[in-house]
Formats: sequence, structure tokens, C-alpha cells
Amino acid sequence: MELWFSEFHAPDVKHSIRVNRHLYSHKSPYQQIDIYETPEFGKVLSLDGNVMLTERDEFIYDEMITHVPMAVHPGIKNVLVIGAGDGGVVHELARYRTIENIDLVEMDEQVVEACRMYLPENASRLDDERVHIYFDNALRFIRRRTDEYDLIIVDSTDPFGPSESYFTKEFYGICYNALHEDGILVNQQGSPFYQHDAEAMQRSHQRIVSTFPISRVYQAHIPTYAAGYWLFGFASKKYHPLDDLDAEKWQALNLKTNYYTTRLHKGAFYLPAFLERLLEEVE
Amino acid sequence: MELWFSEFHAPDVKHSIRVNRHLYSHKSPYQQIDIYETPEFGKVLSLDGNVMLTERDEFIYDEMITHVPMAVHPGIKNVLVIGAGDGGVVHELARYRTIENIDLVEMDEQVVEACRMYLPENASRLDDERVHIYFDNALRFIRRRTDEYDLIIVDSTDPFGPSESYFTKEFYGICYNALHEDGILVNQQGSPFYQHDAEAMQRSHQRIVSTFPISRVYQAHIPTYAAGYWLFGFASKKYHPLDDLDAEKWQALNLKTNYYTTRLHKGAFYLPAFLERLLEEVE
Repeated sequence: MELWFSEFHAPDVKHSIRVNRHLYSHKSPYQQIDIYETPEFGKVLSLDGNVMLTERDEFIYDEMITHVPMAVHPGIKNVLVIGAGDGGVVHELARYRTIENIDLVEMDEQVVEACRMYLPENASRLDDERVHIYFDNALRFIRRRTDEYDLIIVDSTDPFGPSESYFTKEFYGICYNALHEDGILVNQQGSPFYQHDAEAMQRSHQRIVSTFPISRVYQAHIPTYAAGYWLFGFASKKYHPLDDLDAEKWQALNLKTNYYTTRLHKGAFYLPAFLERLLEEVE
Repeated sequence: MELWFSEFHAPDVKHSIRVNRHLYSHKSPYQQIDIYETPEFGKVLSLDGNVMLTERDEFIYDEMITHVPMAVHPGIKNVLVIGAGDGGVVHELARYRTIENIDLVEMDEQVVEACRMYLPENASRLDDERVHIYFDNALRFIRRRTDEYDLIIVDSTDPFGPSESYFTKEFYGICYNALHEDGILVNQQGSPFYQHDAEAMQRSHQRIVSTFPISRVYQAHIPTYAAGYWLFGFASKKYHPLDDLDAEKWQALNLKTNYYTTRLHKGAFYLPAFLERLLEEVE
């Protein structure tokens, strides 16, 4: 028997992962949730047929969305994480003793339950005493918050379907208001390679640029995402992601990482020419 | 009808590209050569079932293997290119007026003929008067050369099969001898993500390190290669790829590029932690 999980990275491009067992399948009120056991990537979580994380390469995403802002802002204590019900980003954040509070807003309780069951390592820090989980609509949740957070991380699905509202100008505006005057917003910004993705990334970047005084895009190699090439948005009221990087201070924390380094931090912002042009078109 | 070209990036991972037409198929004395027309990637050249180039993303490979050494060494006049029968690397090199001679050694004449026919844009500079094509075994060819080249570019297939001898200590040694005392060797170094590739990359890096005084690895996002994540080796007798980068001089050439920039040049050498460790293991 051959069992393969296939995902269309573009209408004419397919990425397929051999599967040992289909461990979990559930249709929640929001989306189709599946967990597979695979020989190459370990356990794989998919939502509506799109790979969200694999045990083998999720460290790249989680490290890059977490350590980049943490190495720039000198005093992050209160963090809001949107989406990320798998617990990977919280796992990375919880390594910082200086963080006092992490609010996690996930609309889909079933994602958290499935990950607690099948990805316990990933979800293990969801029980950290600093973590508070809210099963709620993120827009509704944030709209009630003003001048409250040092860092907001948007770890959403792609801007098509249930997460579409996390890529609107309205959403970036309420994030801006929920942040302190030196706050940072980091979000997943999709892939710049296939046209459909590139256009969505441009729309979203344009909205962030018009909301925050500082807005830069950075990159990482993530093999199971479209084209293996993924982007993050760094939007900030005060701190610049390169000028304000405090490499020595971060290194003194002695956090062992598998992808992030403070040198790579800089390189992640040095983008290919075609991507610089895509961004300039909307800036 | 659905026609798909599939390549195993690892035994349990498959990358598939939808095909409009199978334009060319020929078994040469060395390998199986195929050219496909595809909606997403334009024309695709595969050798023994592995994607060598696509019209859509080959600029990344060709620019990164060419401009990195060209922006470092101040006086490259005589260049040897090994493999690269498709003409893409020669196309990029030929843009430099300061280059006086390009020797191209390709073992398989059929690759050049097929590319001239089906990828004429790619192959167009093979007729440049500075280009000399030798259909020969590269080891035999280089062994006869001493202190002759400023730059050697090894644009081979992967270190399994017909190109295996381009990844040996003997090969790097004869390249060293064929280079001037300030010469540079750049080669494609595979992908660090899947284990089989990572081990081959480590073996090859170890051999280069023991041959050249300066040896660094740099990276690019290439969507159609394994894990979308590809490496190049920069080996040199004198010039350091970062310390000797002359960004101003390169920018003054006004070469329009789609991937390479002198800023990205630096970031390409800022590697993820896991890759730094893989390299350190064999250095």
C-alpha cells in the first residue's frame, strides 16, 4: 500500500509526503483538521488540506517568528499570540524568563485538543502558568485591548478562508492600538514565489506599511511550505529590526536554536531583487 | 488528460509539476535527457529524471553561482565552466565585458544540442566569440591545465551518477592546480535538508576544506530543487567571499538582476544554526 498526502502549492505544482498512518481526522466548525504520521517529516498537522506544521521542520517557523522580535525589543513582557493553537510559538516564547504573560487567542478549540493529544511535545508549554488561552475570535478579542502588549505574533493560516480577516487594514489597525508605543507586530506573510501567493503578500504588506511607521519583510527556508520559501512581516512603532538588533544581549541568553542565529537574523532581511521590487511596488 | 512530472526529493517526498507537452526525450551515452513544457515553470530540462532547470526559476541558480565570485575577485578574465551545457551560466558570465575567455567543458554534446533547440534563450550566448566549448571529460581536460584560470564554476548534476567524480578530493586538487594563485572555485553543493543530500554535502565540503585555504558555503531559495533550499561552495586561494566583496564596484556595472544583490550576497553566507553545525562537524 502507498499512502500519500498531497498539497497543491500552486494549481500546477504538487508537494507530496508519504504517510504511514492517518492518525486523526475531524471537521470542526471552522476547518478540516488532520494529523498524519510520516516517515520523513514525523507527525504532520494539516488544516483544510494545507500543511501547518511538521515535526521535522516546524523549528524554522517557530524560531523565526519568535526570536527575531525578541532580539530587537529590549523589554518584552506581555505577548499576544493569535492562532498557533498547536503550541509551537508559545513553546519558543516560554523559553524567555523575562516574558511575564502570554495570551493565546485561537478560534478553534479542536486544534488545541488535537495537538495536545498527538503533538504533546509541541503543545507542552500551553500549560505554562504564564500562558492564558482564549478560544475566541481574534478581532473581537483585540478590539477590547488598548496599549497593552509589547509584542503581537500572528501565526495564522493563509489569507484565504477562515484567517482572511487577519490580513485586513482593520485588523492591523486594532493590533496597532493594542500595542504599547514601542510595540512590535510579527506575522506570517506567505510566500513570494507563486503568483497567487505573491499578490496576497503584496496586498497585506501594503496594508501594514500604511499602518506602522516601520515595516520590513524577512525570509526563511521552510521545505514543506509553498516553494520552500516563506516570509514574515515585522511591523513596529519604534524599533528597527536591524538597527536595533542587540546581538550580544540575545547571545548572552544562551538559548540553543536550530535555525535562528543573530547573524542569520540580518541575512533574513537581505531579500532577492525580485522580492525587493514586489515590495517597493506597494510601499 | 492530466500529465505530471514527478521527482523524488527524498524517498518519501515527491515534487510534481503539471506538464502540457513532453517536447524532447533522448537517451544519450551518459544520461536520459527530457524537456517538458509546463504551465507554471515554462520549459523544464531534466536529466535522469531530476530537474536541472526551469525557465521560471533558473535565474536564481545562474545568478548566484556567477555573481558571487564576480563581485569578489577584482580581475576575472579567464573562466572555466564545467557541465552547464544548457548555457545558463555562460549567459550570465557573458554579461561581463571584462571576461576575455570562457572555456565550457560538457561531457554530453546531446545536452547542448537539445538546449539550443528547445531553450534557445538560455543557450543564446554559447555562440559568443569568447566561449569555447569542449565535449570532453572534465577531469581529463583540467588535468592538462596549470595556473590558467581566475575562476572555475562547477555546474554539475548531483554527486550520484555521472557527476560523482566532480565531488572527489582528486577533482578539487586538479581544480586548485588549474587556478591562478588568486583563483576561485565555485560549485553547486546540493541541499542540506534531507539526510542523503546533507551527508553528500558534508563529504564534499570536507574535501574542499582540505584543499583550499578559504572555503565557505552559501545558500539560495530554488523552488524546484530538493526542499527548495540549495547550497553553493565558494573555495578560494586568496579572496574571502565577504571581506573582499567590492559592492560599490559591482553596483557600478549596472547589471540588472532578479535575485542577486550585493546585500543578499552577504546574507547568503549567514547560515542557519543546523547547517553551521553540519559544516563544523567536517571542518
